[in-house]
Amino acid sequence: MHSQQPVIERLAVIGVGLIGGSFALALREAGAVRRVIGYGRSAENLKLALQRGIIDEIADAEGLRSADVIVVAVPVGQIAACFQQLVDWDVQGIVTDVGSTKQDVIAHAERLLGSRIRFVPAHPIAGTERSGAGAADATLFHNRKVVITPTGNSDIEATAIVERLWSSAGASVRQMPAAEHDAIFAAVSHLPHLLAYTLMTLLASKPEPEAWLEYAAGGFRDFTRIASSNPEMWRDICVSNRAAVLTEIEAYLEALNQMKSAVAASDAEALTQLFSAARTTREQWLQQVSNKD
Amino acid sequence: MHSQQPVIERLAVIGVGLIGGSFALALREAGAVRRVIGYGRSAENLKLALQRGIIDEIADAEGLRSADVIVVAVPVGQIAACFQQLVDWDVQGIVTDVGSTKQDVIAHAERLLGSRIRFVPAHPIAGTERSGAGAADATLFHNRKVVITPTGNSDIEATAIVERLWSSAGASVRQMPAAEHDAIFAAVSHLPHLLAYTLMTLLASKPEPEAWLEYAAGGFRDFTRIASSNPEMWRDICVSNRAAVLTEIEAYLEALNQMKSAVAASDAEALTQLFSAARTTREQWLQQVSNKD
Repeated sequence: MHSQQPVIERLAVIGVGLIGGSFALALREAGAVRRVIGYGRSAENLKLALQRGIIDEIADAEGLRSADVIVVAVPVGQIAACFQQLVDWDVQGIVTDVGSTKQDVIAHAERLLGSRIRFVPAHPIAGTERSGAGAADATLFHNRKVVITPTGNSDIEATAIVERLWSSAGASVRQMPAAEHDAIFAAVSHLPHLLAYTLMTLLASKPEPEAWLEYAAGGFRDFTRIASSNPEMWRDICVSNRAAVLTEIEAYLEALNQMKSAVAASDAEALTQLFSAARTTREQWLQQVSNKD
Repeated sequence: MHSQQPVIERLAVIGVGLIGGSFALALREAGAVRRVIGYGRSAENLKLALQRGIIDEIADAEGLRSADVIVVAVPVGQIAACFQQLVDWDVQGIVTDVGSTKQDVIAHAERLLGSRIRFVPAHPIAGTERSGAGAADATLFHNRKVVITPTGNSDIEATAIVERLWSSAGASVRQMPAAEHDAIFAAVSHLPHLLAYTLMTLLASKPEPEAWLEYAAGGFRDFTRIASSNPEMWRDICVSNRAAVLTEIEAYLEALNQMKSAVAASDAEALTQLFSAARTTREQWLQQVSNKD
């Protein structure tokens, strides 16, 4: 994984949290960058990033202007404001992001960064339960996927550089259209989060939630784990990927109504078929995943 | 946990699987029974139960007739047929079960066992991913809850004996009405299973399920873990607890439609409130659970 030559000289990280900080650490460890500068809203977090050796210095406008690559690692809801600031600072380098939704981010980039600033939309698929520079980990992206969603306007050289950076960080890079990315992640990630939040909402609405939850066991705990995720982050993702999320909610409501009909009719055969097919799909997926390990 | 005196002399286990076998092992270890006899459909499983010392002998009708307590540890869907057989064998002892639903089992007991055979409805809350005598484990019920749901017709002495057996097995015994039990478990267990199965069904319906599932990560894996549960068992539970399960599906559909409206309206404030309240409910529950440990 260690590059002979750095991929770029200067990396700027906006938002030195779990993702931005881990990206910087991984690239430093791989020798893929010479110097990392960091920018963010929390002075305390930046100080911690300096102490942990994640960044070499806290960036000013001048530093950001001279960065080769600027990774925008802020929550999806703050990306547009961040793009505007980059334009105000007149940055010259390649801009890339780490957002969980892509069509919305690309629309912001086209509107705000225009064609002068080269933008490469990217989404690393990595855990986000912990946060802040203290949680940054050089190995976070090892064997994880990063999806790059270039558009017709994307600069080929800029895309190649961002891909090389992610490869240097240990990730496996895939390309797909932004619309496909958003549809897939609405189904495998955004919908499940909504469903888990919804189950907790339902339990909270019971006359005695605590008395009922006392009987919840391990299955319930695993099912609802993602309902402990950051509410602001998931609100932003739902709003940002609104159309695809609505499509999946609709499809899920339909599928759940089908289950409901089978239960209402005490249709043992239909229930067996539905549950068996569901289990088979999951077992095949686990098989597929473990074969890749 | 070790009793000075056995609670009963002869225990009969019908269905020497994970639950029945673990119950027998735990009682033997605690010295709460003198002799355990086993009965079941699989001669091979009974042989294994003998080899593992879970049971002392394979039961015949004569043996079952003389058992003090008969625990029916077969899947919910087979309980009625099993009760009928106990009547045909003319058993004299206390009959108890381990089913995940209670009103339906009680109705079968009242119809088939009548008032002559004393029946104590029970539900141990313990994992069921593995199965068979090979999975039996004397510590399965340690610090787990067992819910006993006596009816107006329940024999007080019989109930006390079954409670002492479960306490000897290391479990913490609670009593509640069967209707309350079924409502609670529909919400904290049966509904989540249906929701997880439904999500896998939805993914299976995509044009390229494997290509989409390739992007599913740890959150998805945990959320859908219970969709790997035994389809026949969960079909039986859904049919057996039909009314309460339907109530929870209805309530969930309503709650999900509320989420959908908030997403459709891009109502960031409503989404933040819903997600935050859901997370808070879960965090309080985790706190409550860990305080009990």
